[in-house]
Amino acid sequence: MTEEILELLMHRNAVITEEALKKYYVEDEDLKSLLDAERYSLFAGGKRIRPLLTVEFCKLFGGDEEAALPFACAVEMIHTYSLIHDDLPCMDNDDLRRGKPTNHKVFGESTALLAGDALLTGAFEVAASNMAVGAEISAKAVAYLASCAGRYGMVGGQIMDLEGEKRKLSLDALIKLHSLKTGALISAAAVLGALAAGVSFTDPAMADVVTYAENIGLAFQIVDDILDRTGDAATLGKNVGVDAEHQKSTFLTFYSVEEAQFYADRLTQEAISAVRKYPGSETLCAVAEWLSTRKK
Amino acid sequence: MTEEILELLMHRNAVITEEALKKYYVEDEDLKSLLDAERYSLFAGGKRIRPLLTVEFCKLFGGDEEAALPFACAVEMIHTYSLIHDDLPCMDNDDLRRGKPTNHKVFGESTALLAGDALLTGAFEVAASNMAVGAEISAKAVAYLASCAGRYGMVGGQIMDLEGEKRKLSLDALIKLHSLKTGALISAAAVLGALAAGVSFTDPAMADVVTYAENIGLAFQIVDDILDRTGDAATLGKNVGVDAEHQKSTFLTFYSVEEAQFYADRLTQEAISAVRKYPGSETLCAVAEWLSTRKK
Repeated sequence: MTEEILELLMHRNAVITEEALKKYYVEDEDLKSLLDAERYSLFAGGKRIRPLLTVEFCKLFGGDEEAALPFACAVEMIHTYSLIHDDLPCMDNDDLRRGKPTNHKVFGESTALLAGDALLTGAFEVAASNMAVGAEISAKAVAYLASCAGRYGMVGGQIMDLEGEKRKLSLDALIKLHSLKTGALISAAAVLGALAAGVSFTDPAMADVVTYAENIGLAFQIVDDILDRTGDAATLGKNVGVDAEHQKSTFLTFYSVEEAQFYADRLTQEAISAVRKYPGSETLCAVAEWLSTRKK
Repeated sequence: MTEEILELLMHRNAVITEEALKKYYVEDEDLKSLLDAERYSLFAGGKRIRPLLTVEFCKLFGGDEEAALPFACAVEMIHTYSLIHDDLPCMDNDDLRRGKPTNHKVFGESTALLAGDALLTGAFEVAASNMAVGAEISAKAVAYLASCAGRYGMVGGQIMDLEGEKRKLSLDALIKLHSLKTGALISAAAVLGALAAGVSFTDPAMADVVTYAENIGLAFQIVDDILDRTGDAATLGKNVGVDAEHQKSTFLTFYSVEEAQFYADRLTQEAISAVRKYPGSETLCAVAEWLSTRKK
């Protein structure tokens, strides 16, 4: 699959995800600032990689796009909440995200905090109400999504990241940090897609889904570290050299740029190996390739 | 039922809720500060009124305590997260809660933020994994709990509260604010108890559950406003006269203390009327009475 075709598919998927996300909002004049703050970040033009994984894994195992979409929306809401809270002054204190002022810069800190809380809460309402799959699958999806997003998942990774700014991390700790902070929600995106198609946790296919997700998640982070060293600020749309400036432990603390790229490529090939055997996996293979060769 | 017996029942329920809550935590040295921060607030000695409602409504409709407990824990986790986020400097900026330093005063703002996020996320994992009731009820419980806690529920009430500090509210807006900010989660606590016992949303009994919860929720808030005017700081364990100092709209903006107490009493009687017909409702009736006559 060429990069042009992948981009077209990603664009189409972003459009249908955004259409679905919009439907969860009902205007209420009393809640205007909250709803506006949520939508400001939710519709800020992310790449929508996670919802793409949800939809593609659902289709890979014979499920309908319609069954996957509520789960895709839930994962994207959680991703968006994590960005809003991460940008807050008490966290990374970022002024810009994707070239636009961060949520708290526009709406104020308290509204940004509440917008994040509402997106996180809304994600579980949406996932639990997925009519196309029924209660059995919805309940499993909520439990898995929450475990990936929570204290032993994404939030746990964020606390390790905070602690990691105070002291040097071992390579094992760095891998654990990223598998929690980024990998867990990517796994949730993929697994919820498979769940929507009726794949159960005991099905061997689910192990392939998790292998794919864990490998691309780690590769994604390694490439992030490489781009922070070698990338171009204008192309990336964010500052570079930030990790070195903050003396943060990254994969480049342990590897050269070449070794790190080799490591990312190996993870990418393992991800592809896990799904290539399934007919219709071309998009998933192309996503994995694209994530490890991207320049932004 | 005497107040002494109610206090004994409340104490017993608090103990079993706390035992159940503890089981959701598994030690992990890398996540120590997060887990400690969560548990600092979760086990700070709240009155556990919400979990009591969940357990009592479950038993009222013939369900087992065991079926209600995971839902009771989920509601208490959400209540705790809301207190942690509410106390943050960008919100109420409180230094003390129940006579102890607030979460961010002990653990720092970023850890407090993440502890709140983890408690909120964990609540849905716990509710979705309630083995004693099965997937059908779990999925309904998650969806209802999230809708009560989210943008059109508790978080919506918090945004109205923030906005209300900037301008005068109408009585209707004040009632809406409190029915969202406090009432919605109290309703969730009661409704999830009934759901755990197998009561469905279309069952007329569920309307009684909601009537009870909505009325005690509003009465609770009115009494809160009265105590802020007439209460004793030492007995309450918090500062009084705060509302007047902040020129905040409260029920005492619209009513005298006597009128407000009359209003709270009327709501309490309506709550009691809704549940008195069910055998075994003595505790629920006593809780309603106690909430409107409490001095702290």
